[in-house]
Amino acid sequence: MGIAVDTFFLKPDAQGTLQAQIQQMIAEGILLGRFRVGEKLPSSRKLAEHLGVSRITVTLAYTELLSNDYLTSRGRSGYFVSENAPVPPSYAPPERAEETVDWGRAIARRYSGGDMLLKPHDWRDYSYPFIYGQTDPTLFDHANWRLCAVRALGQKDFASLTADYADQDDPLLIEFIARHTLPRRGITARPQEILITLGAQNALWLAAQVLLNHRRRAAIENPGYYALSEMLRRLPCQITPLNVDADGLPPDLVPDETDVIFTSPSHQSPTTATMPLERRRNLLARAHEIDAMIVEDDYDFEMAFAGAPSPSLKSLDTDGRVIYVGSFSKSLSPGLRIGYIVGSEPFIREVRALRMLTLRHPPGHIQRTAAYFLSLGHYDTQIRRVSAALKQRREAMEKAIAEHGLTIAGRGVYGGSSLWMKAPEGVDSYELSRRLIDRSVLIEPGKVFFSGPDEPTEYYRLGYSSIARDKVATGIRYIAEATELFDF
Amino acid sequence: MGIAVDTFFLKPDAQGTLQAQIQQMIAEGILLGRFRVGEKLPSSRKLAEHLGVSRITVTLAYTELLSNDYLTSRGRSGYFVSENAPVPPSYAPPERAEETVDWGRAIARRYSGGDMLLKPHDWRDYSYPFIYGQTDPTLFDHANWRLCAVRALGQKDFASLTADYADQDDPLLIEFIARHTLPRRGITARPQEILITLGAQNALWLAAQVLLNHRRRAAIENPGYYALSEMLRRLPCQITPLNVDADGLPPDLVPDETDVIFTSPSHQSPTTATMPLERRRNLLARAHEIDAMIVEDDYDFEMAFAGAPSPSLKSLDTDGRVIYVGSFSKSLSPGLRIGYIVGSEPFIREVRALRMLTLRHPPGHIQRTAAYFLSLGHYDTQIRRVSAALKQRREAMEKAIAEHGLTIAGRGVYGGSSLWMKAPEGVDSYELSRRLIDRSVLIEPGKVFFSGPDEPTEYYRLGYSSIARDKVATGIRYIAEATELFDF
Repeated sequence: MGIAVDTFFLKPDAQGTLQAQIQQMIAEGILLGRFRVGEKLPSSRKLAEHLGVSRITVTLAYTELLSNDYLTSRGRSGYFVSENAPVPPSYAPPERAEETVDWGRAIARRYSGGDMLLKPHDWRDYSYPFIYGQTDPTLFDHANWRLCAVRALGQKDFASLTADYADQDDPLLIEFIARHTLPRRGITARPQEILITLGAQNALWLAAQVLLNHRRRAAIENPGYYALSEMLRRLPCQITPLNVDADGLPPDLVPDETDVIFTSPSHQSPTTATMPLERRRNLLARAHEIDAMIVEDDYDFEMAFAGAPSPSLKSLDTDGRVIYVGSFSKSLSPGLRIGYIVGSEPFIREVRALRMLTLRHPPGHIQRTAAYFLSLGHYDTQIRRVSAALKQRREAMEKAIAEHGLTIAGRGVYGGSSLWMKAPEGVDSYELSRRLIDRSVLIEPGKVFFSGPDEPTEYYRLGYSSIARDKVATGIRYIAEATELFDF
Repeated sequence: MGIAVDTFFLKPDAQGTLQAQIQQMIAEGILLGRFRVGEKLPSSRKLAEHLGVSRITVTLAYTELLSNDYLTSRGRSGYFVSENAPVPPSYAPPERAEETVDWGRAIARRYSGGDMLLKPHDWRDYSYPFIYGQTDPTLFDHANWRLCAVRALGQKDFASLTADYADQDDPLLIEFIARHTLPRRGITARPQEILITLGAQNALWLAAQVLLNHRRRAAIENPGYYALSEMLRRLPCQITPLNVDADGLPPDLVPDETDVIFTSPSHQSPTTATMPLERRRNLLARAHEIDAMIVEDDYDFEMAFAGAPSPSLKSLDTDGRVIYVGSFSKSLSPGLRIGYIVGSEPFIREVRALRMLTLRHPPGHIQRTAAYFLSLGHYDTQIRRVSAALKQRREAMEKAIAEHGLTIAGRGVYGGSSLWMKAPEGVDSYELSRRLIDRSVLIEPGKVFFSGPDEPTEYYRLGYSSIARDKVATGIRYIAEATELFDF
């Protein structure tokens, strides 16, 4: 590929002759890795025209670079970056003059430095990746996703690929979710009560922005989803963490002054607790009593291989106070970034307007691809396949864990893709995770899920959505061995 | 496609016998359009197992529905929704009981009801669509985009399709932007100084969230990009609209107490004014003097068919105070939702963390597709083709406008894809646009771009990125005729 002429730029403040500036510009581009060996330079005529200099100036610069071995010429076909040109290790632009901006002052609001679970990008290289929430290539129906994507790239779907939807979504996807997905959770919703989001994270954020302000109070689960508490901590609102038990969030802990309750009743994150039907009713009654809204994060309901999931809170809600958040991140893949939020029309009108102001709409092509994948039945097949595999892995997990005497602190009764573990007192699971790296085992330390000053350190999460079944036994054995080595 | 068994749900509070509940559930599903003619019901065994009822109960319910003509049976192959079943016109779920939530109270912050330019979704059906910012199917290189997308769907790119990137981006796309796109604007940036966003709107929003709070003041252009002012109005910050002239934003109008200046120097939106180099320097000097940050929205620089664009503000900035916002919405298509933001590392760290909390990352597949499209040179070809077409259309526009004596209030000296028009005093361009609908002409009334109490009504925008050249003359004639009919 040739180097495009309009990547060349004479800086208005540059020093030296035009010829020298051109030489320097090209040499710098090569040294910094912008131009690579073998790439063709623009013809001297084109470059001269583009820069508004005489052709001879460019030719002289090229000739000079030729003699310096930065460029080679191949007869009439022009100038190329020489094989002998100095090659930078990888692209790193010049050190610039020291910036004078005081960023400490310029940044009005900070978002970095939060307590997030940082997962290694190279998790695929681990032999025993007990990681949560990534896609297993052996389970994702890549072939059919690709077919659907190719169909959605067709002429007939040109508008869904390219159009500015403004505040709207793909009507096909919305209709499918209304007709087929939500009924599985006992929910009926009109199209105008559904909004597509960039995954559940985006849905939770949109809901929080609409329902909270500096005077309002959010109740969250403790331990709970760390990206939710981090997000809320950066909003102007009060936060009350409520300790969950084996049945999830206890309704009688919800303080009177609560405005919004964030909960994950299907599989509490991270303990995997499933809230029993009785408690769901009590939670709704409590919310009714104090007139609080509920945001129900139902991120994982499809993975219910061990029994039918309980009805969603939303399906039991006659007041209209439950906002339902769904996601295809667990059942399909997180990289697609598709979730949805369901609620009463006045609420959806606000999140729709907010989404418009912050990002307009999730890309239409991905929405249309998902609509095809769902409506052609591939989604159901995929869920069945994933559930069957998770069931097997779960059995292998429980068997190995029992053999080695490790302690499960929480196991989703309906399924799910992780177990919540408790190491013996005195074992710091972060240190445990660090030591396990040497044996190519990846576990997720649990401290990040807790709110408050005395965060326990002995919990950890074992995901089994990305580890092969035949790796489970050895991986668990390594964890048990590393745990034994602690002084407790 | 069969109806999945897990879309069936016995409501815990339902009245009547189990058989009646099952019948009602199916009948309702048909009446409401969830189940369609010809769709197969689950076998009685499966449904019984799923609902935890006896098989005979399900069989009796099916038999009853058969005699009511809701279902038909096809011998041993099972039960199907009957062709004689009542067919609803389109899917509309049941009227539910009145909700009791007081949404007026529950909504803590409102985002809807803003002054946005609402473009008709059916703009493609207009014969003379002088619409701005949509994709022209005759100009977008659909074939090569599709090839790149298919390549990005391959096994080799499985991770970019499916992985949770968390706060990261596709390194291929970042590198391409650093090596090839930014140098065209005279900008050098390291990968950690670039973040991919969901279009320019998302980039502007992220920047505003990091740089502004309730004590800080933003200066914006008046008239200016309506979605920017709407977005800022919903943030806790002060806003000063500054009247632009034929050269864009006048630096000496920027008040001393300004913290952030939002500007679109390449093609001021909507007047299309291009800021001369001298004024760019003055604006930087003014920002330096009062220690204000600048957010430079360079959304349209590629469409510079009438002359090379001036260097970006960012390329002239030695302080590090310019945040640069780019977008592929105009050069490729808005439906892809790809933009980027470039700034100093401390700033990018914050917008990256904020993006993580609000949506994690833009979908990897689209990032990878764009990286291929760019690196294979299709992008350059596309820009050349689009620029050539826009140049021709612009000539046709100016010719027709001159013939009919209409007034151009702003024309981008370097190109662009719109003209800013001024109707005679007394002509309300909204009313003008309404009258033109009958002649299948679409224009964009300009009031929405103005801030302040006395918004002028006679301006309008004519986009020419989606109208065929041979339609231009007639479309302009219709506008002139409709203008003449006003009483002024």
